[in-house]
Amino acid sequence: MAADKKNTVFYGTFIHSKKLDELEYLHNTAVFVDSNGKILAVERDCDLDNIATTLFPKLGWQAGNVATEKIKDGQFFFPGFIDTHLHASQYPNVGIFGKSTLLDWLNRYTFPLEASLADPAKARAVYTRCIRKTLSHGTTCAAYYATVDVPSTNLLADLCAASGQRALVGRVCMDQLSPAWYRDESPEASVAATRASIAHIRGIDPAMEIVRPVITPRFAPSCSAPLLRMLGELARETGLPVQTHISENVGEIALVKELFPPALTGAADESYAGVYDAFGLLTDKTILAHAVHLSEGEAELIRERGAKVSHCPCSNSAITSGAARVRWLIEKGVVCGLGTDMSGGYSPSVLEAARLAALVSRHVAMGGDEGAKLSVEEVLYLATRGGAEVVGLEKKVGGFEVGKEWDAQLVALGEVDVDGTVKGVEAGEAEDGNVDVFGWESWEERVAKWLFNGDDRNTRKVWVKGRLVHERK
Amino acid sequence: MAADKKNTVFYGTFIHSKKLDELEYLHNTAVFVDSNGKILAVERDCDLDNIATTLFPKLGWQAGNVATEKIKDGQFFFPGFIDTHLHASQYPNVGIFGKSTLLDWLNRYTFPLEASLADPAKARAVYTRCIRKTLSHGTTCAAYYATVDVPSTNLLADLCAASGQRALVGRVCMDQLSPAWYRDESPEASVAATRASIAHIRGIDPAMEIVRPVITPRFAPSCSAPLLRMLGELARETGLPVQTHISENVGEIALVKELFPPALTGAADESYAGVYDAFGLLTDKTILAHAVHLSEGEAELIRERGAKVSHCPCSNSAITSGAARVRWLIEKGVVCGLGTDMSGGYSPSVLEAARLAALVSRHVAMGGDEGAKLSVEEVLYLATRGGAEVVGLEKKVGGFEVGKEWDAQLVALGEVDVDGTVKGVEAGEAEDGNVDVFGWESWEERVAKWLFNGDDRNTRKVWVKGRLVHERK
Repeated sequence: MAADKKNTVFYGTFIHSKKLDELEYLHNTAVFVDSNGKILAVERDCDLDNIATTLFPKLGWQAGNVATEKIKDGQFFFPGFIDTHLHASQYPNVGIFGKSTLLDWLNRYTFPLEASLADPAKARAVYTRCIRKTLSHGTTCAAYYATVDVPSTNLLADLCAASGQRALVGRVCMDQLSPAWYRDESPEASVAATRASIAHIRGIDPAMEIVRPVITPRFAPSCSAPLLRMLGELARETGLPVQTHISENVGEIALVKELFPPALTGAADESYAGVYDAFGLLTDKTILAHAVHLSEGEAELIRERGAKVSHCPCSNSAITSGAARVRWLIEKGVVCGLGTDMSGGYSPSVLEAARLAALVSRHVAMGGDEGAKLSVEEVLYLATRGGAEVVGLEKKVGGFEVGKEWDAQLVALGEVDVDGTVKGVEAGEAEDGNVDVFGWESWEERVAKWLFNGDDRNTRKVWVKGRLVHERK
Repeated sequence: MAADKKNTVFYGTFIHSKKLDELEYLHNTAVFVDSNGKILAVERDCDLDNIATTLFPKLGWQAGNVATEKIKDGQFFFPGFIDTHLHASQYPNVGIFGKSTLLDWLNRYTFPLEASLADPAKARAVYTRCIRKTLSHGTTCAAYYATVDVPSTNLLADLCAASGQRALVGRVCMDQLSPAWYRDESPEASVAATRASIAHIRGIDPAMEIVRPVITPRFAPSCSAPLLRMLGELARETGLPVQTHISENVGEIALVKELFPPALTGAADESYAGVYDAFGLLTDKTILAHAVHLSEGEAELIRERGAKVSHCPCSNSAITSGAARVRWLIEKGVVCGLGTDMSGGYSPSVLEAARLAALVSRHVAMGGDEGAKLSVEEVLYLATRGGAEVVGLEKKVGGFEVGKEWDAQLVALGEVDVDGTVKGVEAGEAEDGNVDVFGWESWEERVAKWLFNGDDRNTRKVWVKGRLVHERK
């Protein structure tokens, strides 16, 4: 698209995380993005009318080849969200879980749906919709689980590349626990299929600019010891990231203890984290989803190895897994981000995951640890910079700094007029969203309103690596 | 509006609660609503083309004077939601609460905003927007707290009557605890102002068809013992309902114990419920918001008196009040409904309150009481029939039966096409909402999807007493 290949100046208010508990508000600011989607300069408190003469020469830009995206007062740019854990293949099941908990839910709702995506037409519809939906909610980067099936996993990667959504795409490895009609035939077959998918994904994006493969043992109970060992070796050999689940549910933890005694794994103890570690799967490129019931020792081990945690509050509450102690993990030095975990989680929105992270942290606080509460600023950090670090892309995305890539969303909130209508809606200029700003709110309060009542209607445009990948009409 | 004054046949799928844990699905059904908004007949499994000859004669209807509202396959009618507890005056503060808890939140965010609504222009903008917003989310009946100010409280009632939203409207009574600039000057002044507001509301709707007054002591700590006694007497004298808060937060409970010793109240013990009971405020027309930390004895007393509970999960989680044990209350025989409790609660949506009621019940279950989990069916019961009973309107609204009034919403979910788009959206026929149906879902699964990802976009039309009060363009 020619328009996307221009240099672009984005001008207006930019909000991003300065540190865990602080957002930075940059007003009257210009961000200069080159035709490859890289941020070349950030100029604060400047006048848009003058930059062509003052700043373009420094960048070597010609005014005629620069697009300008100036936003209205009250709107702001925010870094794209990073969803550090979701199953694209389960998207059609969001909201469907009944009264089940993890192991029952897998057999009843999840495995049948995943297996059915071996039908390429169904996979195309589901994956296309999942990508469009998550992009519309501002998710510029997603760490996806696909299914056991290689062709449809590859299709997911193709669709991410075509739509421009940054993604880690993992073929699911599992050779036990599930029904015979939905698992790998052997550890060797599982690794061979994984290699095939890795080769395909590398083929479509050799520089891993948008899409990259991720080694994906579903979770320990789904994998035999030989398979876990071979996947650990594959991770070492390829240098690729790994994603899996850990310590989501008490029944699952008991199952891991039963299936993986130290005599089998060679681990020093029978902890869940110790199982992954014994097989070379606990590294600084490992994304661990959930981490609800970790012991002190496991959290220490995870920090030592530099593995990261994807906190999935919507899922943990919905399927009654537990309330993860995110403050405790952060204070231990474990890097955390947020995951929607569709369809254990019911929502495609990282903003909803951030909202629930705040609420669930209050339930942890009700248990006696008053310091557990996560603030608006903190959950938005987890949704952006935290997530970037979890997926290993913290040098590329998560904030608006020179050298990073332009993965961003344009956010607009509704402004209430004196007659109780929202400005522009009657005239068809704006959409009647769920956030109402009355005019007297501080910027901090506007952001809090967005966190708690915002949805995809507020995300007007989304860019990945400078490319416009979603726009609300 | 002439169009609203016709007899109307609504035809299609109707879903409502049969009992607490069961929804009833009525397909190919016609509901006959007269020009006063009353349901005259419900005909199941009928053919719309034939009813003019078979059924109109029985009702004495002439085909020429009957409007027809036939909905598409996949859409359904659902009873309007009942919000049993919210502060219209706090609507601009939704989402703004920081890390505060109840008593701090009142002083910092709430009292200043409420006091500012003595400005009639500001009150008009805020109340108009609150009514439009809650109607758009399907709230056909709301139990509102306004402020201490009489004229703007009366304005809220006027606006509800004009917009057609069924409402209980309460002037807030409080003569202590809050700053001098925001409280009643004396118990006598408080009662006189309350009487003035009651008279106004009775004047605009003498038969209480749409709007009715409700006696509203803010909560015990905000009221002196003489004021509580006088309000109890006023309730007995007028027969009007009462609404207040109870046992929301542990700090508040300690304050009640300190302020209202049995020596002052004459109660048998120092319980919070006992305080209201001692002053004649715990009756079968009393709506108690929150009820998070009740003792066994208090729950018994509430059941004996027939008082009702408004469960407000969004609020209880957001301001870290606690996790109410709704299953325990229901099993004790206490009638429960749902409240958004704006702006302690962040959301204007009863659907969101129902969603959070399900999630919070899972946090109660995580504490060890597995039976605490509330199902999809149960939280939707609380949002409709439960709420109707809480506000004393169970004979009028809450379900689709002959003799009830037509308070309903038309719900439409997005249908995903094989190419991953939503049918009709590209052609401008439908809106791109947050619920995606792929076509293979059962009706139970469609409702679960609506509960967990639905929003005001899915509520296409809303009626109160037969009048169309909201429509999405």
